[in-house]
Amino acid sequence: MNAIARLIRPRSVAVIGASADPAKTSGRPVSFLQKHGFSGAIYPVNPKVERIGDLTCYPDVGALPAVPDVGIVLLGAERAHLAVRELSKRGAAAAIVLASGYTETGEEGALRQMQLLDAAGSMRILGPNTIGLVNLTDNIVLSASGALAMDHFPAGPIGLVSQSGGILGALLSRAAARGIGLSKLVSTSNEADLELSDFIEFLADDEATRVIALYVEAIRHPARFREAVRKAREAGKPVVAFKIGRSEAGAKAAVSHTGALAGSDRMYDALFRQLGVIRAKTFEELLDIPAALAAGRKLGGKRVAILTSTGGAGTIVSDSLGVAGFETPAPDAETAAQLASLQSGSYASLDRNPVDLTLAGLHPDILRGAIRTLLTSPSYDALVIIAGSSAVGSPALLADAVHDCLPLSDKPVIAYVSPHAPNVGAVLTERGVPAYTSAESCASAFSGLLLAAQSSQGDFAVRAERRVDIGDFPPGSLDEAQAKVLFTRFGIPAVAEQIVSTPAEAEVAARELGGKVVLKILSGEITHKSDVGGVAVNLTPDTISARLTAMAADVEAATGRRPQRFLVQEMIAGGTELILGMHRDALGTAVLIGMGGVTAELFKDTSMRLLPPQGGLSREEALSMLRDLITWPLLDRFRGRAKADVEALVSTIVAFSLMVAQLGERLIEAEINPVFVLPAGHGVRAADGVVVLGAAGG
Amino acid sequence: MNAIARLIRPRSVAVIGASADPAKTSGRPVSFLQKHGFSGAIYPVNPKVERIGDLTCYPDVGALPAVPDVGIVLLGAERAHLAVRELSKRGAAAAIVLASGYTETGEEGALRQMQLLDAAGSMRILGPNTIGLVNLTDNIVLSASGALAMDHFPAGPIGLVSQSGGILGALLSRAAARGIGLSKLVSTSNEADLELSDFIEFLADDEATRVIALYVEAIRHPARFREAVRKAREAGKPVVAFKIGRSEAGAKAAVSHTGALAGSDRMYDALFRQLGVIRAKTFEELLDIPAALAAGRKLGGKRVAILTSTGGAGTIVSDSLGVAGFETPAPDAETAAQLASLQSGSYASLDRNPVDLTLAGLHPDILRGAIRTLLTSPSYDALVIIAGSSAVGSPALLADAVHDCLPLSDKPVIAYVSPHAPNVGAVLTERGVPAYTSAESCASAFSGLLLAAQSSQGDFAVRAERRVDIGDFPPGSLDEAQAKVLFTRFGIPAVAEQIVSTPAEAEVAARELGGKVVLKILSGEITHKSDVGGVAVNLTPDTISARLTAMAADVEAATGRRPQRFLVQEMIAGGTELILGMHRDALGTAVLIGMGGVTAELFKDTSMRLLPPQGGLSREEALSMLRDLITWPLLDRFRGRAKADVEALVSTIVAFSLMVAQLGERLIEAEINPVFVLPAGHGVRAADGVVVLGAAGG
Repeated sequence: MNAIARLIRPRSVAVIGASADPAKTSGRPVSFLQKHGFSGAIYPVNPKVERIGDLTCYPDVGALPAVPDVGIVLLGAERAHLAVRELSKRGAAAAIVLASGYTETGEEGALRQMQLLDAAGSMRILGPNTIGLVNLTDNIVLSASGALAMDHFPAGPIGLVSQSGGILGALLSRAAARGIGLSKLVSTSNEADLELSDFIEFLADDEATRVIALYVEAIRHPARFREAVRKAREAGKPVVAFKIGRSEAGAKAAVSHTGALAGSDRMYDALFRQLGVIRAKTFEELLDIPAALAAGRKLGGKRVAILTSTGGAGTIVSDSLGVAGFETPAPDAETAAQLASLQSGSYASLDRNPVDLTLAGLHPDILRGAIRTLLTSPSYDALVIIAGSSAVGSPALLADAVHDCLPLSDKPVIAYVSPHAPNVGAVLTERGVPAYTSAESCASAFSGLLLAAQSSQGDFAVRAERRVDIGDFPPGSLDEAQAKVLFTRFGIPAVAEQIVSTPAEAEVAARELGGKVVLKILSGEITHKSDVGGVAVNLTPDTISARLTAMAADVEAATGRRPQRFLVQEMIAGGTELILGMHRDALGTAVLIGMGGVTAELFKDTSMRLLPPQGGLSREEALSMLRDLITWPLLDRFRGRAKADVEALVSTIVAFSLMVAQLGERLIEAEINPVFVLPAGHGVRAADGVVVLGAAGG
Repeated sequence: MNAIARLIRPRSVAVIGASADPAKTSGRPVSFLQKHGFSGAIYPVNPKVERIGDLTCYPDVGALPAVPDVGIVLLGAERAHLAVRELSKRGAAAAIVLASGYTETGEEGALRQMQLLDAAGSMRILGPNTIGLVNLTDNIVLSASGALAMDHFPAGPIGLVSQSGGILGALLSRAAARGIGLSKLVSTSNEADLELSDFIEFLADDEATRVIALYVEAIRHPARFREAVRKAREAGKPVVAFKIGRSEAGAKAAVSHTGALAGSDRMYDALFRQLGVIRAKTFEELLDIPAALAAGRKLGGKRVAILTSTGGAGTIVSDSLGVAGFETPAPDAETAAQLASLQSGSYASLDRNPVDLTLAGLHPDILRGAIRTLLTSPSYDALVIIAGSSAVGSPALLADAVHDCLPLSDKPVIAYVSPHAPNVGAVLTERGVPAYTSAESCASAFSGLLLAAQSSQGDFAVRAERRVDIGDFPPGSLDEAQAKVLFTRFGIPAVAEQIVSTPAEAEVAARELGGKVVLKILSGEITHKSDVGGVAVNLTPDTISARLTAMAADVEAATGRRPQRFLVQEMIAGGTELILGMHRDALGTAVLIGMGGVTAELFKDTSMRLLPPQGGLSREEALSMLRDLITWPLLDRFRGRAKADVEALVSTIVAFSLMVAQLGERLIEAEINPVFVLPAGHGVRAADGVVVLGAAGG
């Protein structure tokens, strides 16, 4: 049994700093262990107390009669490391350290955290600043959370890992009130040692767990997270994550809460999507979606039947499902006929959706008949049952009817409870019909089921065929021509161009390039060339030499320096402009694509994918990035436009990603802006670009 | 006392079709009237029963000992009208008709509804298909809603009108569970007679009501709604509305629910905004926002302090507030010093926001000190207090501390309850601190307060200086030239253009117009001119005649008819393209503006305002429409662009709106596409347009 398994299923627990007063935080762990039925040995440690209830209390860890699997350390930050050292010496598998006052408080705290780790040696640490963990499968409570004062928590298949201690209590009590069963809850908090991914891996193997839910403030080790999620997904367990930091305010609050620096929120979005992690958009969804997944039913499409006895609530649910992209079609003729045969009263609406039984819904046979009909109807992929005021008095009527019909089909069935009736919701949820009090939650639940049913896009690295030699490039900012040489070397097509210094050379170059040309100054320093008059378009061999002379004068006037070198480029007409770039932060390195032009810029229409650990993006990922753009139709025959050369654009994105992957940390910045996409068959052209290289080997 | 006042505060109530069994729906009204303490006379009417409890039961309405103010009619749709006729004959003020089977079921039902109205004569009808009304201010329950089986409902300042009966029960029970106090609840449902606006007007005058909340499926009489809302707003009462039909599915469900045809959802958005009605985006917000408004405190800015004793929940709230556009700045130096002086323990975070008291938050003095400091700090406009697990055991500790500090400031104070602890939330709400269990609800509450604090944009009609004579325009589709003549007559500038028939005329016209010109075929039938080769740009007097000949051939080839007339137009360069149009549906007539071009089209970037009842849009409204566009910066110097002639564009929108207002129903369709906006000082030009006129006087 490894250390994490011993931590979660200990046979013996020492509680260092235990108080005899169960009302005190330091009195809770022993009290909760007993209250919730821990069957192993409990060793309270406190030199000032002899007994706690019927338990012997020991003066120190050294005095314990046996090696504890786990030590819960309730001492303050000044002394916690002393107990940790003793526990390690005795051979405990892990210590749970509740004290705060570590990395979350600043530098001094960070030093204390180092000291704590040092004291632990090879023993594992959960925390510090944690509220502990709860193993509901085995009735083992290793926590001081006030939420555990409740008597009963339904055990079930949802395993939860939280990077906040307080949130563990909130999730535990909220889940219990709704009848949502959990398997394990772990608060990792400061993650001095054990972290999110350790417990994702544990839960991936844990038989009692079928769904994994995460409360995330910052993923400290993205590579390990990828591995852990992959393992969970391979075990057939969906992973749902709520990540704080969608706004700058939240990101700042999270940093000051646990002291970890997260990457940007969009990077998390991309990572979750690439790994097939379902992102909970609100804290509520972190229970709403797992509750739906825990029922273990698969959503095969978007057509939802709504069965109600109260019209208004049916309308609300229908509306929210519609907003979320679901359909609520009317029943097909046969389904409608079956519903009509239930003879549920003259004014029931049975040929529409919501199917409104009105008061006939109180009649068990009619209710069962309607549920049976809708569950087996070929018109629907899922069913929402609405509990109205009539259900408040007799929640079992509805719950039994639905529960009995569940075996008829494996379509998802959820419930919406319209009045305030927590008992109705809990009974339904416990009987396999996850219940919600908000129509948006119903929609979220179905959206989560739909995402879980889609096979992951995969996260395959594409390897380059060969390593590109760039030994001849100097560190620092490349000029535009150098940047394009670099791009070209990695297989990205660029506009044809020539470097010139004189009007005569420019004229020759224009003649060689043919057609209309563009003239630009070439400089490693001046980045905004047009701002200083350093760009001219639509030139011909006849006009270019005069234009070069004028440009040199303009630029000199604007910058005080006469430009020495110019670029003469083929001018691209009839293409669509895009921007291809990269972004790197704590979470990894991503490739970004966006539509060019001022209008698209206002809409911030970009799409992003993180590079896999060992290579570039696949063609499928590159295409899916493009399809994510709202402006994708501009590349795809929108309003009579020519079909763009998407194949070539995809190749370019892949080539760019392989360049970013090969160069790694050495590539400080890279952007192609614009890259022109020509009509199908005519390829793409990088027309301008920025590259900043670090020192070789860096 | 008018009929509505008698309906809501009756001195006597007849219940027609009352059952002696309180478990039956027909037994509820008498039972609920008594249970909730109605002090007037109750007259059950049922020929089969002699007594109901201690009440005499009468065989028919004619036998009643006195005229009832209100009759609750519990009979089915087949017989309800008979009771209604009797009640009217006796002189009752109003009948509440619960039966379904009217307009919501189709044509036959619509006939029954007509019959019902006819039977009512001058007596008012609430319903049919209603669950009735509840007057919590005066303990008068005229409803059969199962939700009223609860014993206690907090009375308070929120008046609610619902177009669904089931929703009334849901709101009543949900509000009660949260400690949110209501004044009156009315379910108008089918609105055969009394409707939404009648009760908005009543509540505007009702002393016990300070906030009005609406559950809307369809506004049947927009003009009356405008008046009613204006009255409520003048009385200083904010109006919050949840409107079903944000999606097509919901709109369809709503139609089949009450049989009313709503306008498009965007029209409602525009109407609500123009009237200063706060739109609840979810059903939850229909209680969340009124609960915040009911506390009667004004939000003066966006800076929110968060006080917590549990870090994770503080982070969640901070994040959601950030997403909603609020700020959570750190305390200023003086505020931080005051917090530090509370000596709340070494690891509390007092120089940050959320302000985290950690366990010291359990100490009443420290808690009060922190609340006092934050409420009086110049750094904040509002305060969120977070209740963690520690509050579960002693909700009064927190509630008392906050309540006592409220008089120190009139900043809004709300609470977020992190664990499942409904008692904590209810106690806080009842003591003037609206409590929420979702961080999004906290943000919604503040957003609602902010909207309520903004003075309404007003809904002023702008009158035209003179009536434009259009007697010379025929009904039907105008051709492009006629459309522009019409626009010009209403003061909308159009491009200079001439109608020509021959190459020679075209050359003369091009010479007269000067510069580059555009050549188009002129036809009332062909709407997509470019699709048939009927548009050419960039022409000069030298090229136009040949081009005309070629165009005539192309169009003839494409359509089978040789075009006889052409337009030669000045060609506009350097302007920004927009589309200016109108939309009319059940809710009214709106003017629409949108950015032109394919990219903007993909983003559906348009903005809309309804015309006021008697005139056109004001310049302020026109400008605010433009500012609503995400692409507004394109008109406002974005990325070095010239400032567009917004003044002229505003004048054009106002002129267009006056045209739409004057022509009324006669104007079937009108769109200017594109209208070019030139740089400031150079005006706008309508370059193409469509107008369809109906018959004069129509």
